[in-house]
Amino acid sequence: MLHPPVVILDKPQLAENIGAAARVMANFGLSELRLVSPRDGWPQGRAWASASGADWPLDGARVFPDVAAALGDLQLVFALTARPREAQLPVFEPREGVARLVQASAQGLRTGLLFGAERAGLETADVALTQGVVTVPVDPRFRSLNLAQAVAVCCYEWALASGRAAPPAFEAHLAPPAPGEEALRLYEHLERELDAAGFFFPPENRPSMVRNLRAALGRAGFTTQEVRTLRGVITALSKGRGRTLQRLADPRRSEPGSGEG
Amino acid sequence: MLHPPVVILDKPQLAENIGAAARVMANFGLSELRLVSPRDGWPQGRAWASASGADWPLDGARVFPDVAAALGDLQLVFALTARPREAQLPVFEPREGVARLVQASAQGLRTGLLFGAERAGLETADVALTQGVVTVPVDPRFRSLNLAQAVAVCCYEWALASGRAAPPAFEAHLAPPAPGEEALRLYEHLERELDAAGFFFPPENRPSMVRNLRAALGRAGFTTQEVRTLRGVITALSKGRGRTLQRLADPRRSEPGSGEG
Repeated sequence: MLHPPVVILDKPQLAENIGAAARVMANFGLSELRLVSPRDGWPQGRAWASASGADWPLDGARVFPDVAAALGDLQLVFALTARPREAQLPVFEPREGVARLVQASAQGLRTGLLFGAERAGLETADVALTQGVVTVPVDPRFRSLNLAQAVAVCCYEWALASGRAAPPAFEAHLAPPAPGEEALRLYEHLERELDAAGFFFPPENRPSMVRNLRAALGRAGFTTQEVRTLRGVITALSKGRGRTLQRLADPRRSEPGSGEG
Repeated sequence: MLHPPVVILDKPQLAENIGAAARVMANFGLSELRLVSPRDGWPQGRAWASASGADWPLDGARVFPDVAAALGDLQLVFALTARPREAQLPVFEPREGVARLVQASAQGLRTGLLFGAERAGLETADVALTQGVVTVPVDPRFRSLNLAQAVAVCCYEWALASGRAAPPAFEAHLAPPAPGEEALRLYEHLERELDAAGFFFPPENRPSMVRNLRAALGRAGFTTQEVRTLRGVITALSKGRGRTLQRLADPRRSEPGSGEG
């Protein structure tokens, strides 16, 4: 039995949509629901009313303050968005994207699907925290897909693909990607050092530069060991630069800086 | 460009579900909606409100008094139901069922998907008017699939399959099945004659016997010409029997009966 993906709803507006999402999750064997800052708070009775008895995803739903926190323990997350070009991430149709989640799940990874708010969709900075984009192939003449319907399509594909899960693929011998929170600490570490180095210039470009960096690094699917190594790399580079700067300022001081937690 | 299937909602209860169905039809390129005896009448403003701008399937929706009328001009219709064993019809998952609709549409046939009411589902007599059953593979622990979500799954599969429509299959040289109303008149003709012959015995079994007959005949996908031929067969058999009975009752009378319209 594969562990199904976690469904993460970012800033959902309507309790009815949360309930409808829970219902269709239950239809297709998914159960773990996370809510990022639901507009009207949580819990909301109308969600249970519209779940038609699929109470358990709602009863167990966890609320997070932001997307990064909600993805903290997940190792492979795809973002549902109709605007895939904003991030340098692989783009899949639901069938292919879900097939990859099935494969990852078969290898024991914790996976997730991230859905944006009803009208606003996902912020690109949050998309950049995922490892890929899933785009539902809607008619360009009418793209406005209901949130719970997007969840339905993905859960339906999960039910089909997981029931026919292939044996682990050739990547199975690789170590798994680190959880999202480790990757996030890596990114923040890097960005802190780049800030200090004046890398983000002009300053108004910082958000997009950060997003692009995170997306690019995220595609690699670094393992926990690799994250640790890379943080050492960042520390080494930045402290080295610090020493150089310190030497330039005061040639007598040359002791190494304290390590980065 | 393939002509997409007509979506037929039998006795829909909630206007919100009609609107949600229209919306997801529009998302995936379907547009023709038919309603059989909507519970709260038609039109209903709440349907438009929940369609979020997908007005055209609602604006063009036609209302019918019963399923037979709604299928009258269609040549290949599949019924969505979770209880496929009631009729002797082929049962497909949505992907396979929709692939067959795509193939039929590529041959110029008029196709449809028939959905039952929110709680009651479809009556078996109405399922027997279709040529196959489509069952969404829901988790047996929570089968209660929202009507609009069932529509979504089928429309999604239509969008995928029609975008990658295969060339006409080997059956393409066959003449197309007759429209539903021709098949229905054939069934009714047959049943009338069988009633006259005392075939349906015991009488309480008549409904299930009728359903089984219709389903069995429906699977053949008779062409208009074949329907005509079969009606001639029925007429010939029944009038022949009539003559035999008449001869038994009154050996002098032997003129043939009037033909069946």
